[in-house]
Amino acid sequence: MSNNVNPTAALLIVGNEILSGRTQDKNLNWLALQFSALGIRFAEARVIPDVMEEVVEAVNAMRAKYTYLFTTGGIGPTHDDITTACIARAFGVPVIRHPEAQALLEGYYAPELRNEARMRMADVPQGASLIANPVSFAPGYRMENVFTLAGVPRIMQAMFDSLKHQLQPGQAYVSRSLRIWTGEGNIATLMSEVQAAFPRLDIGSYPFTQPLPEGATRFGTSVVARCTEQAEVDAAVAQLQEGILARGYDFSEE
Amino acid sequence: MSNNVNPTAALLIVGNEILSGRTQDKNLNWLALQFSALGIRFAEARVIPDVMEEVVEAVNAMRAKYTYLFTTGGIGPTHDDITTACIARAFGVPVIRHPEAQALLEGYYAPELRNEARMRMADVPQGASLIANPVSFAPGYRMENVFTLAGVPRIMQAMFDSLKHQLQPGQAYVSRSLRIWTGEGNIATLMSEVQAAFPRLDIGSYPFTQPLPEGATRFGTSVVARCTEQAEVDAAVAQLQEGILARGYDFSEE
Repeated sequence: MSNNVNPTAALLIVGNEILSGRTQDKNLNWLALQFSALGIRFAEARVIPDVMEEVVEAVNAMRAKYTYLFTTGGIGPTHDDITTACIARAFGVPVIRHPEAQALLEGYYAPELRNEARMRMADVPQGASLIANPVSFAPGYRMENVFTLAGVPRIMQAMFDSLKHQLQPGQAYVSRSLRIWTGEGNIATLMSEVQAAFPRLDIGSYPFTQPLPEGATRFGTSVVARCTEQAEVDAAVAQLQEGILARGYDFSEE
Repeated sequence: MSNNVNPTAALLIVGNEILSGRTQDKNLNWLALQFSALGIRFAEARVIPDVMEEVVEAVNAMRAKYTYLFTTGGIGPTHDDITTACIARAFGVPVIRHPEAQALLEGYYAPELRNEARMRMADVPQGASLIANPVSFAPGYRMENVFTLAGVPRIMQAMFDSLKHQLQPGQAYVSRSLRIWTGEGNIATLMSEVQAAFPRLDIGSYPFTQPLPEGATRFGTSVVARCTEQAEVDAAVAQLQEGILARGYDFSEE
């Protein structure tokens, strides 16, 4: 399928609130689109609870396997914010109070708002470099290939913007999608043929329904061709379009 | 934290379309709420690409670790639907065409719509039992503690409703949430005290902002107390409320 030259990224969501159903995660999709534009292959995401052993194990498994690991969540001021302790343990280093982070927080919080809980947000694993947080100042940080970010989407996004110049970009992915007015099963053979002709492409199909005015429903299939090579995507889409018309179906480009 | 008596569940999303950013997953959150109501502890979710070795490895790791494993995606009629081959390999059994599933599909598709691609949706790992799909007939299936479901949310939900009587329920989780009109850092100590008083509770805090009419923004913190014991949740919330008022902050119950 896709090229294997691009760097890879994985995401670890430290998230009791995702697993309890309280919160619908929005970071995965946002990061997926960022990685795609940067030519970084998004290879795995995990959601795990706020439990030290689980986080440490996942961090060590994922940082060894992928070019970059991003974590979201668990770096606030409260007792359930355990990510920093976990990253430190995963790397076998102590947690230290980072002087620059401390100065940032002291500049942000008026004296009467400075307390030990808030100052804990200046704690990082020893050896970490800070990632700027222009929204609320408490920084994220990088340890080797692991980037630890906030869970709040607006803050996570601002941190990602601060760090992305540090990432080695690959060849950006390009994709084209066709909405085809027939069931998946009627174009399965065609898709296999196109996949065989363009082995580096990811060609996926996703059934959808569209409500019609009279209360009826129309079935269709979205077919997505995705690759780092625009020319291959275009050639595959051309072959798909020809095959769809030859089979007597309609389509539109998404 | 939570009790360790409840059964556990994990979710494996076989999903190139999630990792590419094309699609925002909706199954995780829906399943999370189902598990919570059934008293099943949702312990991990992973999103991985449609790659045989990755799927087999994740299935075997996760089915060994948790009471139940659910997979979503990759059981349609097209070349990129590889989940069944992966589950069969994970269990070391061949893929067979299930006679009952075949009969279902033959009943659903008119003769001119029956083709080999569609009939592949009657293929299951040897030894699997079917999970009814009242939406579009192509069934899911169960292999031991592994439930393989469709990726389309409406179909996945219907399959889950078909299978859920097979799950051993635990003690349902109950939760209460307070919206507190102050920053997380001002109630961190209070939360730690309440957590220490109620060690079985999960107490989480989540900052939020609320836009005000004049264009300004008000900061607050949602605190969620969650446990299988209503009385403990209530007692913890009472202690939180008392502490919040003692510190001079306002709150409302969500």
